[in-house]
Amino acid sequence: MDATYPRVTIGVFDSGFGGLTVLRELLPLIPGAHYVYLGDTARLPYGSKSRATIARYAVESARFLESHGANHLVIACNTASALALDDIRAAVKIPVTGVIEPGARSAWAALASRAMNQTGVDRPQDHLRPDHRDVLVLATQATVSSHAYDRACTALGLRAVEKACPLLVPLVEEGWIDHPVTREVIRIYLTEAIGDGTPNVVLLGCTHYPLIKHAIRAALRELGHSIEVIDSARATALVVSHGIQNRIDANPSRPDASFECYATDSTEKFARLGSQFLGQPIPQVKLLDLGG
Amino acid sequence: MDATYPRVTIGVFDSGFGGLTVLRELLPLIPGAHYVYLGDTARLPYGSKSRATIARYAVESARFLESHGANHLVIACNTASALALDDIRAAVKIPVTGVIEPGARSAWAALASRAMNQTGVDRPQDHLRPDHRDVLVLATQATVSSHAYDRACTALGLRAVEKACPLLVPLVEEGWIDHPVTREVIRIYLTEAIGDGTPNVVLLGCTHYPLIKHAIRAALRELGHSIEVIDSARATALVVSHGIQNRIDANPSRPDASFECYATDSTEKFARLGSQFLGQPIPQVKLLDLGG
Repeated sequence: MDATYPRVTIGVFDSGFGGLTVLRELLPLIPGAHYVYLGDTARLPYGSKSRATIARYAVESARFLESHGANHLVIACNTASALALDDIRAAVKIPVTGVIEPGARSAWAALASRAMNQTGVDRPQDHLRPDHRDVLVLATQATVSSHAYDRACTALGLRAVEKACPLLVPLVEEGWIDHPVTREVIRIYLTEAIGDGTPNVVLLGCTHYPLIKHAIRAALRELGHSIEVIDSARATALVVSHGIQNRIDANPSRPDASFECYATDSTEKFARLGSQFLGQPIPQVKLLDLGG
Repeated sequence: MDATYPRVTIGVFDSGFGGLTVLRELLPLIPGAHYVYLGDTARLPYGSKSRATIARYAVESARFLESHGANHLVIACNTASALALDDIRAAVKIPVTGVIEPGARSAWAALASRAMNQTGVDRPQDHLRPDHRDVLVLATQATVSSHAYDRACTALGLRAVEKACPLLVPLVEEGWIDHPVTREVIRIYLTEAIGDGTPNVVLLGCTHYPLIKHAIRAALRELGHSIEVIDSARATALVVSHGIQNRIDANPSRPDASFECYATDSTEKFARLGSQFLGQPIPQVKLLDLGG
């Protein structure tokens, strides 16, 4: 490797496996980088814990990734992004990208794109009708309680309805991806969230949910809502790639993408479950003790 | 209080709220004692974590309770009892009671009692027919993987079929106690576990499950099985009371039972959810930092 161009190393952090859906999007977008993924599986789920506890855990994980050579950090965990992004930024010296703001921007882009197609204008932000700005955010209890998506959507002129869906992560981890019980739970949550209204777009505010995106789309159709379902994994990957692509293109000895994975609990379980989220085998997972 | 009779203090430990079902049984059985309950809620659930991690967490919690004056320790957590009882016993100097062996004994007693009623003999252990010894144990993944119930049942001449039910804890914590989805999930788990056979008794190997005991009984009836459902909370309380009742009765200045609760995460959530498990309000919960 050319010494004047140290290799870009991207640290990706989540409480568990879900953030691997973000790594999955990053790999083809920034193929020249090295990735270090850390799943704090010994202390998951973050979604039901308090802000102080989540911040402490996330800062410890972020410091590990920085000390391990990361020169960019992706918080691929909605709960930590919602509750601990400021703490993490204060604790490390490298740029930090969360998933909340890219997710909200992705919702805005979907609505603006539709408005542009419908109205033919090229400044959709001026023409997004007031009744075309409702975003239904599905997330964990902690993410919802933080109202981080509400703030991010409001800043973009959107209105967020936030719905906590505590059973969806356990259902995904049970492997009930295409299962009648999962469809019924989704139907109940959507019915409770939507009531008599109709959102304009549904935003998946948890990195586990892309695995049941198909079931969420199907439930919306059954309830008579033909609306787009988006997740923040791709949006986050795009934001990260925009910031560092130039450094990679300038590297004359660009190697292929490579990644290594750390987990704070069972590495066997991480490799087995994680490969479903990453969409490819995870050859080796290293055990990490964060002392918690 | 009489100085020659230091008050019996019973430490009760669980990863979360579930162990409060054991405290609920202890309070009327050993009314003269003081109870210190610790829920390690910042690091729950233990059920999906590895043995090494669970042992480390449980030992830290046990040491806290011992240093806090407990002279008897109840591990009111099936996962910690299954995976870390030896580690806990090695780490503290006070007697330790887990829930696995009392649970298995309770299953044996239920089967023996029925055999005695049916056959009229007074030594049921000699007359428990081979086809009347099947115990279906419902528990978390970690408890099942440990096969602790299998060992405890085998030691009593029983045969255990162990079934992991990872969704039942999240369903109880969502408050879906009497809910069609919970009934359907129970029906699926029981159907998978029972197959073509019929167990002679069902043993609830998780302290969350007593809250849905009614739904489990109903599902068994619907599947055509008229069998008893037992939990280890009462059996564990009886074992503990047997060991220390004499010391309490001998105390001439016996005060009423009192308890204090510690949690490692949100004390508000602990008080709110925990009161459902304890069956009475929890006036105050103290926050504890175990450094994890």
